[in-house]
Amino acid sequence: MRLNLSTDYALRLLMYLGTHPDRLCTIQEVAERFDISRTHLMKVANLLSQRGWVRSVRGKNGGLQLGKAAEAINVGAVVRDTEADFQLVECMGTQGAHCLLDNRCQLKRLLHQATLAFLAHLDAYTLVDLLQPETRQILLESAS
Amino acid sequence: MRLNLSTDYALRLLMYLGTHPDRLCTIQEVAERFDISRTHLMKVANLLSQRGWVRSVRGKNGGLQLGKAAEAINVGAVVRDTEADFQLVECMGTQGAHCLLDNRCQLKRLLHQATLAFLAHLDAYTLVDLLQPETRQILLESAS
Repeated sequence: MRLNLSTDYALRLLMYLGTHPDRLCTIQEVAERFDISRTHLMKVANLLSQRGWVRSVRGKNGGLQLGKAAEAINVGAVVRDTEADFQLVECMGTQGAHCLLDNRCQLKRLLHQATLAFLAHLDAYTLVDLLQPETRQILLESAS
Repeated sequence: MRLNLSTDYALRLLMYLGTHPDRLCTIQEVAERFDISRTHLMKVANLLSQRGWVRSVRGKNGGLQLGKAAEAINVGAVVRDTEADFQLVECMGTQGAHCLLDNRCQLKRLLHQATLAFLAHLDAYTLVDLLQPETRQILLESAS
């Protein structure tokens, strides 16, 4: 079972921004800190910006900051935004599905319900829960 | 979010075998009915056979049948066997992970717990639950 790489990067970006609420952070900086693709991270930042999780300030001294308070950034809601879909198996997709059971399959319903259980767990947490002291310390150290 | 294709095929194979408890089914037959890769399905069948979910009978008139009663085939247990891992994000893997937060990250724990919630939902169901009359009817019809 895998999440999109975009979801991974989105949550890391939010954690980084949440650790530095007092200043704007750049894509370059975050990509370097996590040693991840700058291009991919930029796409993720654009998506997060469109959805209001991140605020993007343009210009020479521009950068990113959280778009709302960390306690208002629900992990489940972010994952719903960054996962393109929750088509756990082919038949849950709208395109290219050709299983003979089609819509009369209990498996599809069961996997959908299990996905809701997965998301419901994430719904119980906000960015604040991901920013415990030890994590903050590492992210602050790495930026110094 | 995606499951392995192997998990998809495994559950379809088990559903098919469960619909035909009175005879051996061949890989060829199941691959044709679902219009899926015979080679991939064979690999999945081998795995299911190793784990006891399927019984494989060799020889000219050989084929596959369920390795245990349908009510003893737990969906969650099968998915645990067929998913290579539950590394939802890179840092949950054992190889190649290089996130600076490493083991001091709350996200990893949170995603692990959400995965357990996902699997716990599947644990509440067996193959019998996937073989409701309508599904059985389709799978029987398709074999005739």
